[in-house]
Amino acid sequence: MIRINEHYTKLKASYLFAEIARRMADHQRAHPGQPLIRLGIGDVTEPLPPVCVAALHAAAEEMAKRETFKGYGPDQGYPFLREAIAEHDYRARGCAIEPDEIFVSDGAKCDCGNIQELFAADARVAIPDPVYPVYLDTNVMAGRTGHLRDGRYEGIVYLDSTPANGYVPAPPAQAADLVYLCFPNNPTGAVATRDQLAAWVEYARRHRAVLLFDSAYETFIRDPQLPHSIYEIPGAREVAIELRSFSKTAGFTGTRCAYTVVPKTLVAYDAAGAAHPLHGLWYRRQSTKFNGVSYPVQRAAAAIFSPEGRKQTRALADFYLGNAKIIRDALTKLGVPCVGGDNAPYLWAHVGRDSWQFFDLLLNKAGVVVTPGAGFGKCGEGHVRISAFNSRENVTAAVERIAAALK
Amino acid sequence: MIRINEHYTKLKASYLFAEIARRMADHQRAHPGQPLIRLGIGDVTEPLPPVCVAALHAAAEEMAKRETFKGYGPDQGYPFLREAIAEHDYRARGCAIEPDEIFVSDGAKCDCGNIQELFAADARVAIPDPVYPVYLDTNVMAGRTGHLRDGRYEGIVYLDSTPANGYVPAPPAQAADLVYLCFPNNPTGAVATRDQLAAWVEYARRHRAVLLFDSAYETFIRDPQLPHSIYEIPGAREVAIELRSFSKTAGFTGTRCAYTVVPKTLVAYDAAGAAHPLHGLWYRRQSTKFNGVSYPVQRAAAAIFSPEGRKQTRALADFYLGNAKIIRDALTKLGVPCVGGDNAPYLWAHVGRDSWQFFDLLLNKAGVVVTPGAGFGKCGEGHVRISAFNSRENVTAAVERIAAALK
Repeated sequence: MIRINEHYTKLKASYLFAEIARRMADHQRAHPGQPLIRLGIGDVTEPLPPVCVAALHAAAEEMAKRETFKGYGPDQGYPFLREAIAEHDYRARGCAIEPDEIFVSDGAKCDCGNIQELFAADARVAIPDPVYPVYLDTNVMAGRTGHLRDGRYEGIVYLDSTPANGYVPAPPAQAADLVYLCFPNNPTGAVATRDQLAAWVEYARRHRAVLLFDSAYETFIRDPQLPHSIYEIPGAREVAIELRSFSKTAGFTGTRCAYTVVPKTLVAYDAAGAAHPLHGLWYRRQSTKFNGVSYPVQRAAAAIFSPEGRKQTRALADFYLGNAKIIRDALTKLGVPCVGGDNAPYLWAHVGRDSWQFFDLLLNKAGVVVTPGAGFGKCGEGHVRISAFNSRENVTAAVERIAAALK
Repeated sequence: MIRINEHYTKLKASYLFAEIARRMADHQRAHPGQPLIRLGIGDVTEPLPPVCVAALHAAAEEMAKRETFKGYGPDQGYPFLREAIAEHDYRARGCAIEPDEIFVSDGAKCDCGNIQELFAADARVAIPDPVYPVYLDTNVMAGRTGHLRDGRYEGIVYLDSTPANGYVPAPPAQAADLVYLCFPNNPTGAVATRDQLAAWVEYARRHRAVLLFDSAYETFIRDPQLPHSIYEIPGAREVAIELRSFSKTAGFTGTRCAYTVVPKTLVAYDAAGAAHPLHGLWYRRQSTKFNGVSYPVQRAAAAIFSPEGRKQTRALADFYLGNAKIIRDALTKLGVPCVGGDNAPYLWAHVGRDSWQFFDLLLNKAGVVVTPGAGFGKCGEGHVRISAFNSRENVTAAVERIAAALK
């Protein structure tokens, strides 16, 4: 008799976006004339940069001719893309990352969901709260947690992100083996400083832990003092994996391309204490369970590293940051404390009351949809996430409606 | 201290294609004037069908405009593609499969690698020999086997595919929980009859096992008596998952699109004996660790279901089958027994001697590269796989060279 992986039964049903959709639908039935403005979901709204569109067209033509047709590509990505990433995203910032340390994939969600397979089933996992749910859920599925009790899984080391620590948790007193960090953060928009990341690298080196550093939103960093990559911190090559995505950098949420960096100097251990390079393990995982990213998509991704592509993607990020500034200024004027929005496309507003109640207030009185912080974890209570991904017109209208509603 | 998943250390290094590449390189250094013809690897060579190229162009234009731009799509695939698949690949053949039972993905390799996550760590797995290595390796990584002893993993139920059973194994006497089947087969090209599949469905129902039916090569079936889908067998909806791919159907090995069918009537059990629908578990897995297939690629895949697309893909499969016939006729004339090539793009030649020795003979005397059967498992010894994926010109030249070499 075939039995299921019973760890799946420990998962909390993901009510968050389903519940938001339900309340939106109820509202629209009740007020059919009032169009909603959605600042809830973290999806981009602006078209692909023209260099990417041109690259898609050119690659489609290559696929149309026998001489230039591409079948199976390298599982880890084409050299033209891995070299462009190493050069522009790393060497240009002083990080010693080689092209063959970069694994191109179809999404950071996939990579951050799959990477935990490389580690022992009893690895002790540290996860921020609030958090992008994939970090937690994939470890629940793998059996690294006990049951959910009072909103938290047994066995997880939670890293509280609160107003007191500026939403950037310091390393805990206890040892963890695998630490998930995300800066600029989703959902808070907070960004760790160089010193704060250095403390994490030191922690990982001391405990022989691995950091999974998710920097999917690095393109929004404007403060020149803030690090874009964990590899800007000395010693990180020995303790950190970095995950990045073109989803927000170049509007690729529907086009699908991302990458993961696994330095060759990074190891984990077997029970006898022998060191095993994680590069080889991830290579084995990916070459066994993945078959590379669509060739036209890899060409579109590579196009953003051209001089014209860099201008176009910079303008795209600037556009969303312009939206974020409008939201941030409006919240400040209303006396609502918040972080994010300056070096990130998300704002984390400390609304000081039940987050679903505040969600309902904005929905009903302003016709604006945000995301209740409680959906991201216990520490999200009392907060909402506001996304800057929308048109300028909608963002301007939304802040006017919010101001009127909160008066 | 972070420890690795030590099951990875049980994996046999995948020497097969690396060793082939090494011997090819040696040969080319020794005989620089003699170009090799590669009938080894299972990759397509002909360009994308024109309908797919047109769809890629049209989708690129949609991505270029704010009004038609696509961000995150449904994790499980767009309805336009799921509906086309349900209609043309299933209902048209009398199989009751609904669009929401179809999960679109970026590759059958990913799906058949990931699907085992849904099952208990101690599930007893049955795997054919010879076999596509992903079935075996992903279960080794998940800890469902012991160590490799004498070429076979402890704990696996091997299903021998031999000349005696026409390379289609019958269900074994012992019970297994999870059974991998692939027809038309890679590497042998053998295809199971309706009665043979019915015996497997009966076995699965009796033991409450799950069949993972890989039909990535169904498009090459020409014998009207042969089933294309496991769901043509009564009762299969209660015991089988089916995996399919556009890789060989429409030349998508570099474009990347596939799908997996999980009927809502299919269940597995928890330790207390309660039934859990696998549809819900796979939905949870995919929505947690996957973010959908690139929109332009889904449009290209949907295009093959148009009347023009169906003509173009039929012609593509016919072309490769034409190659296969040339190879099959030549082998028959040479007195080399073989299966496959009539309803599959692979031929499995029973060469009656060490498969690496025969590989070397063809490489050195004919300048033709095939795949030694021993690389696919113990029962592959004495065989080689010959692929029909090449130009007509190369295939014609290859069989002439093989005939001369074997004289």
